[in-house]
Amino acid sequence: MSLPRTATTFAPPVMEARRWLQGVTFPPGRPLLNVSQAAPVDPPPLAMREAMADLAMNEPQAHLYGPVLGLPALREEVAARWTRSYGGTVAAAQVAITSGCNQAFCAAIHTLVAEGDEVILPVPWYFNHKMWLDMAGAVAVPLPTGAGLIPDPEQAAALITPRTRAIVLVTPNNPGGVEYPPAVIRAFFDLARARSIALIVDETYRDFLAASSAPHDLFADPDWDDTLIQLYSFSKAYRLTGHRVGAMSASPARLAEVEKFLDTVTICPAQIGQFAALWGMQNLDQWLAGERDEIMARRAAITGGFAPLAAKGWELMGCGAYFAYMAHPFDLPSDRLAQRLVAEAGVLLLPGTMFMPEGDAAGKRQLRVAFANVDAQGIGALLDRLGGFAG
Amino acid sequence: MSLPRTATTFAPPVMEARRWLQGVTFPPGRPLLNVSQAAPVDPPPLAMREAMADLAMNEPQAHLYGPVLGLPALREEVAARWTRSYGGTVAAAQVAITSGCNQAFCAAIHTLVAEGDEVILPVPWYFNHKMWLDMAGAVAVPLPTGAGLIPDPEQAAALITPRTRAIVLVTPNNPGGVEYPPAVIRAFFDLARARSIALIVDETYRDFLAASSAPHDLFADPDWDDTLIQLYSFSKAYRLTGHRVGAMSASPARLAEVEKFLDTVTICPAQIGQFAALWGMQNLDQWLAGERDEIMARRAAITGGFAPLAAKGWELMGCGAYFAYMAHPFDLPSDRLAQRLVAEAGVLLLPGTMFMPEGDAAGKRQLRVAFANVDAQGIGALLDRLGGFAG
Repeated sequence: MSLPRTATTFAPPVMEARRWLQGVTFPPGRPLLNVSQAAPVDPPPLAMREAMADLAMNEPQAHLYGPVLGLPALREEVAARWTRSYGGTVAAAQVAITSGCNQAFCAAIHTLVAEGDEVILPVPWYFNHKMWLDMAGAVAVPLPTGAGLIPDPEQAAALITPRTRAIVLVTPNNPGGVEYPPAVIRAFFDLARARSIALIVDETYRDFLAASSAPHDLFADPDWDDTLIQLYSFSKAYRLTGHRVGAMSASPARLAEVEKFLDTVTICPAQIGQFAALWGMQNLDQWLAGERDEIMARRAAITGGFAPLAAKGWELMGCGAYFAYMAHPFDLPSDRLAQRLVAEAGVLLLPGTMFMPEGDAAGKRQLRVAFANVDAQGIGALLDRLGGFAG
Repeated sequence: MSLPRTATTFAPPVMEARRWLQGVTFPPGRPLLNVSQAAPVDPPPLAMREAMADLAMNEPQAHLYGPVLGLPALREEVAARWTRSYGGTVAAAQVAITSGCNQAFCAAIHTLVAEGDEVILPVPWYFNHKMWLDMAGAVAVPLPTGAGLIPDPEQAAALITPRTRAIVLVTPNNPGGVEYPPAVIRAFFDLARARSIALIVDETYRDFLAASSAPHDLFADPDWDDTLIQLYSFSKAYRLTGHRVGAMSASPARLAEVEKFLDTVTICPAQIGQFAALWGMQNLDQWLAGERDEIMARRAAITGGFAPLAAKGWELMGCGAYFAYMAHPFDLPSDRLAQRLVAEAGVLLLPGTMFMPEGDAAGKRQLRVAFANVDAQGIGALLDRLGGFAG
């Protein structure tokens, strides 16, 4: 008797880490610094909340079923914006709205894999990607990335088998924080196309890139949708994490398959969140630029303040978007270290073991810090606490 | 090479039926009667919309990630209410909130099945259940129901094999409209327990039962959660279809497995919808009683007005909750008939073929009418149009 699908995977890491807080008290002078989850801690700006209150009162469609593939006006807006910002052409018929970006990934995978098929994920990987592949009966094939955390297309090519259906890139990377260079993304696209597999590019954190140029040129290929499946999230940009709105850009034929999945799993994305996302895209560009500046300042606080940790043997492997990914100097596996840091340093972060195949040695030396919800002063305190921890 | 998961199933019936409307014009004197989807057409009552507007403005948590298994206060409220209305005890730890009831079903199935496992569904079945089993790599085993649309536990027992993991009941039934007698539900529970499989009872339409007594006594068994997985939807009762809020009652151990699925597919249910559902449970009992009365009046309009159709060879096989399930007298398969009814009678309904295994002969004689969004006058017009159709 085979294991049921959920029994083939592990418990959600963020919830598991939250359980480490149970029974721990934090002195008033040293409150918990929670850098475990990539999530804004403030609600959307007032103007957006006012727009949502108005929708709740006066837009009946905000409360009723909508199309499975999402609000047509939002699909149009995403298409127009991707066309502008990436170059090339994305049509509304190539965009679906999903109940968050995780769901976009799940739906994409279900259009690709049968039992036992393989999907290549650079490691460290995003744990929910691994979990969904497990539950889908697919095999996650780890692609090691080494010191710079940038995956190598040639190494990926060597992992492709007749069962391989896709390669997944997350850029800016979760958990690594690094931005993949456009040329690397292009090389992966060319590889995927040459081998007739899909390239999934998860750009959840695209609004927080260091550069203002396009993160890749894939949409400029007029036939991009024969290979590319691009994923996006409205959660971070507009602080809509609780409304569950994401997007997928892919071929209309693939979206017809995606429609089967979405109809069955949620029927439609939450409508009021979709209206809010549309309102955000139409009205919050300047506000979002300010949000990005603030994230850049926090990133600078990490990179600029890291020297004392480096002197103690810490290494900053990657830093960007919402994340800093670090190697620690202690003779302790990172999952044990992370639990000790809760009580002994007042810091909740996730260990590298949560982003790696079970037993992987590198993961035991690594930690992810999701710094987006801690201001520069808090980041100073965070670095002090980590630097003060003696192992 | 096996088919990818979505390619193993069919296109969403409601969306497919909507496409039949393309290019059809409806004369002003005979506008379309759309009885294809079980959905309220009006938004929630004003007081609830005001509550939601207030939440949007003043409750930061309405916009941010919440617990994977749902808002604790809503889990408490569901538990307290089920305890009161069914007798027995349901604890908050036995309740999870999901992004709609479809998702509750999907999550439940993933805690039960591996590739090739079997799940027994009475036919006609709810098509999204069949679709999810297909996509999960499980086998939907049809359990014929015959004239009264009530499944027989003894017949079900004969279908159980070593691969069977669950039996699914939907009561009041979609598409059949019938309410399963408590003794039948109990017999299925006893069967499932005796054979160590799960019993999933989908009570999406429980707020629109004809009787005011408890629809079954399963929760009165102190060990109900070793066998029962009960599903519920807030969509119909509070007109929250666009907010995607459902619930599952099951054992805490199963909910720990469900948490893996929900975390990976949507992270958490939309928060503002959960707050609204809680507000509805706390404030709208009297309003909901009026909604139920209205549905009962619509049901009476169908049963009371059916004689002219019966005289022409139609049969009303089931009528309750949101649905009337009918056999038609024409020498035409129901999917062809349904498409002709759009242009020739101005009626959009779903054919029985959409609720049956492919090729099943009975489905070709049957039609589902989702009458909840048509008032008594509209139902009169609907029956007139069906009765006037000459085949």
